[in-house]
Amino acid sequence: MPVLVMKFGGTSVATLDRIKRAAKRVGVEVAKGYDVIVIVSAMSGETNKLVGFVNETSPLFDAREYDAVVSSGENVTAGLMALTLQEMDVPARSWQGWQVPVKTTSAHSSARIEEIPTDNIMRKFAEGMKVAVVAGFQGISPEGRITTLGRGGSDTTAVAFAAAFGAERCDIYTDVDGVYTTDPRICDKARKLDRIAFEEMLELASLGAKVLQTRSVELAMRYKVKLRVLSSFEEQSDDAGTLVCDEEDIMESNVVAGVAYSRDEAKMTLVSVADRPGIAAAIFTPLSEAGVNVDMIVQNISEEGRTDMTFSCPTDQVKRAEKAMSDAKDAGKINFHDIVADTGVAKVSVVGIGMRSHTGVAAKMFQVLAKEGVNIKIITTSEIKISVLIDRKYMELAVQALHDAFELEKAG
Amino acid sequence: MPVLVMKFGGTSVATLDRIKRAAKRVGVEVAKGYDVIVIVSAMSGETNKLVGFVNETSPLFDAREYDAVVSSGENVTAGLMALTLQEMDVPARSWQGWQVPVKTTSAHSSARIEEIPTDNIMRKFAEGMKVAVVAGFQGISPEGRITTLGRGGSDTTAVAFAAAFGAERCDIYTDVDGVYTTDPRICDKARKLDRIAFEEMLELASLGAKVLQTRSVELAMRYKVKLRVLSSFEEQSDDAGTLVCDEEDIMESNVVAGVAYSRDEAKMTLVSVADRPGIAAAIFTPLSEAGVNVDMIVQNISEEGRTDMTFSCPTDQVKRAEKAMSDAKDAGKINFHDIVADTGVAKVSVVGIGMRSHTGVAAKMFQVLAKEGVNIKIITTSEIKISVLIDRKYMELAVQALHDAFELEKAG
Repeated sequence: MPVLVMKFGGTSVATLDRIKRAAKRVGVEVAKGYDVIVIVSAMSGETNKLVGFVNETSPLFDAREYDAVVSSGENVTAGLMALTLQEMDVPARSWQGWQVPVKTTSAHSSARIEEIPTDNIMRKFAEGMKVAVVAGFQGISPEGRITTLGRGGSDTTAVAFAAAFGAERCDIYTDVDGVYTTDPRICDKARKLDRIAFEEMLELASLGAKVLQTRSVELAMRYKVKLRVLSSFEEQSDDAGTLVCDEEDIMESNVVAGVAYSRDEAKMTLVSVADRPGIAAAIFTPLSEAGVNVDMIVQNISEEGRTDMTFSCPTDQVKRAEKAMSDAKDAGKINFHDIVADTGVAKVSVVGIGMRSHTGVAAKMFQVLAKEGVNIKIITTSEIKISVLIDRKYMELAVQALHDAFELEKAG
Repeated sequence: MPVLVMKFGGTSVATLDRIKRAAKRVGVEVAKGYDVIVIVSAMSGETNKLVGFVNETSPLFDAREYDAVVSSGENVTAGLMALTLQEMDVPARSWQGWQVPVKTTSAHSSARIEEIPTDNIMRKFAEGMKVAVVAGFQGISPEGRITTLGRGGSDTTAVAFAAAFGAERCDIYTDVDGVYTTDPRICDKARKLDRIAFEEMLELASLGAKVLQTRSVELAMRYKVKLRVLSSFEEQSDDAGTLVCDEEDIMESNVVAGVAYSRDEAKMTLVSVADRPGIAAAIFTPLSEAGVNVDMIVQNISEEGRTDMTFSCPTDQVKRAEKAMSDAKDAGKINFHDIVADTGVAKVSVVGIGMRSHTGVAAKMFQVLAKEGVNIKIITTSEIKISVLIDRKYMELAVQALHDAFELEKAG
């Protein structure tokens, strides 16, 4: 039997009724002759509740305990989904990460999947089971402790299973009906894309368009997993949603595919750092070791041997970053006068593989923002994207103005 | 280091503040020099929520999936307790059942603990860890699936750990400050007992006095585990609460130690059963196989080769019992005209080891109930208890009248 992977996100399994609706979608695919692996997230709100508990208990938590706590939501959904399928007379059972086992690294709360043995589940398929329901987002470390893959990790679980089982396709069911040129909640001209290149999706995902977790797209690209994003709230045809695919499979496209934003950015500035060779490494190595995901970096012009070093990171890592910097200062590894955190910022980006062959996108972007009176704090660029850090209060305005300026409401 | 087991029930860990309070109690024992094993329940209300989900999804659920779902609440508390202790600078880590591993039978949702290897946790103690926080109520089957021990199973987990680790004592922290002569919520004359015999506690627990799970008391009796029930909401001295101990350790006692009740009883009647040798076995074997916990049994006088067979079981097993009986009828194993379930009943019992040497307790009990106009539906007796099934609406009245009649407000 061909294998299909279907992943249901938190809003798609938020209530027992929604789990039932999702189970019916699974039943449709089983009826088509697939052996289905269903990856489930926690019921909407559950993971946030658990994360809240952990943060309130211990701001600088032991990530191993964090993982043990926050992974529990997915286990609940997996069991309930298996029961719902059984009620529909579809032979199903649930697996928790450690039961498969989903073998990961020991990097707690952002572990990477290293191996997914298929024999256990394939044997059950051979015995007549039609659906394996797997708790997403979680795995087991070499030390036998529960790990999690980071927020949105269930997407990565889904793609990893699709790769391991050679699945025909990996369908990601979510609360939107595909990938849009930008977030329709803040720009009503946003348009659904039928197809998007892996590379574009990667930038959009990592820039905060929360449809898919970045690593799931990387993984899909590497293992050539056909990835489809579609809504669990609509009747679906076979070509519904957005297909995330190779660049070559896209006939035409706009220069800019989409405008992304990220609200959860903080700008951190190390004031008056002693400027010397190796200072960047001295700063960013301890940040990396503390698990801080540094994104944009700017180093001011050095004056009298001192400089300001500014970087951005997720707002919820500010405390961690401050502690890592203070510790490094105390240990005599770096020297600075002050550390200043600005949590009132946001990142806005334009993304498109067409940018490789078209110039002037950056200039146009800066003109549009200037015209709207938006001050740019940091700029970073890559081959296919330009990102700017701005005051958060201008975020919606910037997204809408850029969407208009690049005419994204029109198909390419 | 001597080992102490401390168990905290759902209300004792219902909020982060209560977890902190419990952790402080643990800290006090660590400061005394104990290596502590903490067994935690799910936060109050969580398990009920999960059980509700399962029942709504699938009334005749697959118990393996039930276990996978309902065991998750304890995992959350275990992680949060470990984090709370770490915040207090007490070296701690959490263990889920399968990590210890708590090896159980495959009898899902009422599994029995078969073995608890101690090496894993003892090695951590040797390395300097002071507290092992273990998720109660759960284990792992020989097939590698998650099992649960039945409601209140965390008590059994606690006693089993105390036995396995040769703990000095097993302290059960709960929302009451000990074992009472009856439930103070329905009888304001209820009195706290300083000591109670294992046998009495066994009857009280199995009869629905929900302070301790029955099997935990059996286990404590068998392995001579000193068991103490005390409140997590009061400052504690070393002799607080109620000690559950050997009969010989109790100097004096009333003939009747307590009055217990159980609200969750249903009376099932098989109407007009063909009466023949082996009919009881034919009825109760399939019930047992279906996991129905039959408690009281009455067989009416046989007329013209037919009889009525009445039994009681927990209300949430009524559907299961009905199905088992219908299936047995369809399979031609038994024959009856109708099956009638009465879920409006309750069980009230008087318990006391003194009853072994005193007569007249039963007569007095029946007189008291008759005087209050309470009709008795079924009677069962043992060496140290008498139980009656009555209409639920008379339950509180019966408990209060019996408590008065046996003068339980006075110490023996």
